Amino acid sequence: MKRPWQGQVEPPLLTPVPRHDPHNPLCPGATRANGEVNPHYEGTFLFDNDFPALQPDAPSPGPSDHPLFQAEAARGVCKVMCFHPWSDVTLPLMSVPEIRAVIDAWASVTEELGAQYPWVQIFENKGAMMGCSNPHPHCQVWASSFLPDVAQREERSQRAYQSQHGEPLLMEYGRQELLRKDRLVLTSEHWLVLVPFWAVWPFQTLLLPRRHVRRLPELTPAERDDLASIMKKLLTKYDNLFETSFPYSMGWHGAPMGSEAGANWDHWQLHAHYYPPLLRSATVRKFMVGYEMLAQAQRDLTPEQAAERLRALPEVHYRLGQK
Amino acid sequence: MKRPWQGQVEPPLLTPVPRHDPHNPLCPGATRANGEVNPHYEGTFLFDNDFPALQPDAPSPGPSDHPLFQAEAARGVCKVMCFHPWSDVTLPLMSVPEIRAVIDAWASVTEELGAQYPWVQIFENKGAMMGCSNPHPHCQVWASSFLPDVAQREERSQRAYQSQHGEPLLMEYGRQELLRKDRLVLTSEHWLVLVPFWAVWPFQTLLLPRRHVRRLPELTPAERDDLASIMKKLLTKYDNLFETSFPYSMGWHGAPMGSEAGANWDHWQLHAHYYPPLLRSATVRKFMVGYEMLAQAQRDLTPEQAAERLRALPEVHYRLGQK
Ligand SMILES: O=P(O)(O)O[C@H]1O[C@H](CO)[C@@H](O)[C@H](O)[C@H]1O
Ligand SMILES: O=P(O)(O)O[C@H]1O[C@H](CO)[C@@H](O)[C@H](O)[C@H]1O
Repeated sequence: MKRPWQGQVEPPLLTPVPRHDPHNPLCPGATRANGEVNPHYEGTFLFDNDFPALQPDAPSPGPSDHPLFQAEAARGVCKVMCFHPWSDVTLPLMSVPEIRAVIDAWASVTEELGAQYPWVQIFENKGAMMGCSNPHPHCQVWASSFLPDVAQREERSQRAYQSQHGEPLLMEYGRQELLRKDRLVLTSEHWLVLVPFWAVWPFQTLLLPRRHVRRLPELTPAERDDLASIMKKLLTKYDNLFETSFPYSMGWHGAPMGSEAGANWDHWQLHAHYYPPLLRSATVRKFMVGYEMLAQAQRDLTPEQAAERLRALPEVHYRLGQK
Repeated sequence: MKRPWQGQVEPPLLTPVPRHDPHNPLCPGATRANGEVNPHYEGTFLFDNDFPALQPDAPSPGPSDHPLFQAEAARGVCKVMCFHPWSDVTLPLMSVPEIRAVIDAWASVTEELGAQYPWVQIFENKGAMMGCSNPHPHCQVWASSFLPDVAQREERSQRAYQSQHGEPLLMEYGRQELLRKDRLVLTSEHWLVLVPFWAVWPFQTLLLPRRHVRRLPELTPAERDDLASIMKKLLTKYDNLFETSFPYSMGWHGAPMGSEAGANWDHWQLHAHYYPPLLRSATVRKFMVGYEMLAQAQRDLTPEQAAERLRALPEVHYRLGQK
């Protein structure tokens, strides 16, 4: 962190986002690429991605002729979920009841797609820096016929820990962080936010329920309200850190579903990961490049330093509070 | 690839780089952050990074009190290697003998640091998009007291393949790609360049010697000359793809060294990985974000499509040839 920075500075957001743009395919009443017209929705709105990366009927690659050349069909569906009818808001600027509606929609889509697919990946790319191609507040939901790589690794680690220690890894981990305190960012009746011991992105956080919960649909109404409120606090702190609409990719991980949903998945604990790219300011990011791509992640600040800075930030958004 | 792109466009390089800038710490004769003055070097120039991520005397974190909280000291050294005295050239604009001098310097630094450290990671971050903070042509060398994550994975896979099939994984892989042809980009007497079957970055390539070579210092003079020439061709194709100074992170992987250098590492085959970020044009990149970070890499173009486009490009640089 002491190194002088002469490298790339991200382009600032120059144009303010209009509240409604009839040509933006995510807006209420707009016409999408496939000719469909969006309803005049007033809360969340879920629809099929017009440019899906996964399709339900992807062809099989056929048998392999060599151990080093193995391919499998990847089948699934890709959906888009708008969080709000307005393009000029983000989650931290929405009200707690509006965020609660997003959480309910996340739980429903998990249930709906999980009936057929073993993995339902909800993720939000926020900000142009994180490849988001549309400023309207939204996330994506990709359901797949297979457990993706990261899901497989979490499955293996959580299963091994449970069989060795007799309890879920992330339950013990959350309990330990509550005792140790130096990586905690926020706590509430039902939730914890912390910078994990293994964090590699600057200001990376892990959002965990206190109770043993395997999947989003299992959350009680009280846990959902509390989640909406702690999310608003966390995302407000993020925006306040560099007084900018803080970019990140985030997503939920919970126990696999699909035809095996009824098996024993008690080693799983529901959680969300937040991966923010900004390191030094609103325009200077962390680059995960050479050494990180070819060898190993290396950190520019410690999890304890990141947690301390996030803890110290106000819970009132810099654009809403009085200066 | 059919999806319309309204997202981030990278800032173009506005200012031409001066050939010599006395305030650039990588230039001959310049004063560095630690007060040292660079020699008036005429070829390559190797020096200690003034802001090293690894240090030889990093303290031990002490014993762990819990299985989930394990840390180890990471010791090592970080060096910087300038490729050329001029700031306004890049490898593809350098002559074959000048590139050959870089290869010799890579082999020497591997030998020198490998005497003490088990892993010597040579890597080049090229271009501001890849976090490069100085336009002067250079790479970095980080030697570590441990095998980094990616090295460990390559060690496990190559060892397992050798014990199952009795020959090095990458020898058989290269042979298969020579037969199959559709992922080949360039071949020469001693080297192959291909887009690997497992590529996730657009236009990612793998550079492999044809002979079984475990480490850079083992390369013969003829193999080094031929490597300089195939590197110039590959990097010229890269620059020609979008008529820009093509950004990438690249690096070398070879058998571990240090105190275990004398053990049997015959399952290792030396190779270089090139990871370029550009997808659609000189200013629109591939973002490895939400789904990729939380679930699994997904590709925007196939390795065969990427190889075909690279094969078709001229081997004369767009800035040097006649239009
Ligand atoms: O050492 P540099 O060029 O300043 O830094 C660059 O390479 C490092 C090693 O890959 C990364 O950790 C940094 O994020 C990147 O900006
Ligand atoms: O679907 P989008 O928002 O157009 O695309 C974004 O998210 C995808 C999923 O993480 C990535 O593969 C793309 O590179 C990124 O630009």
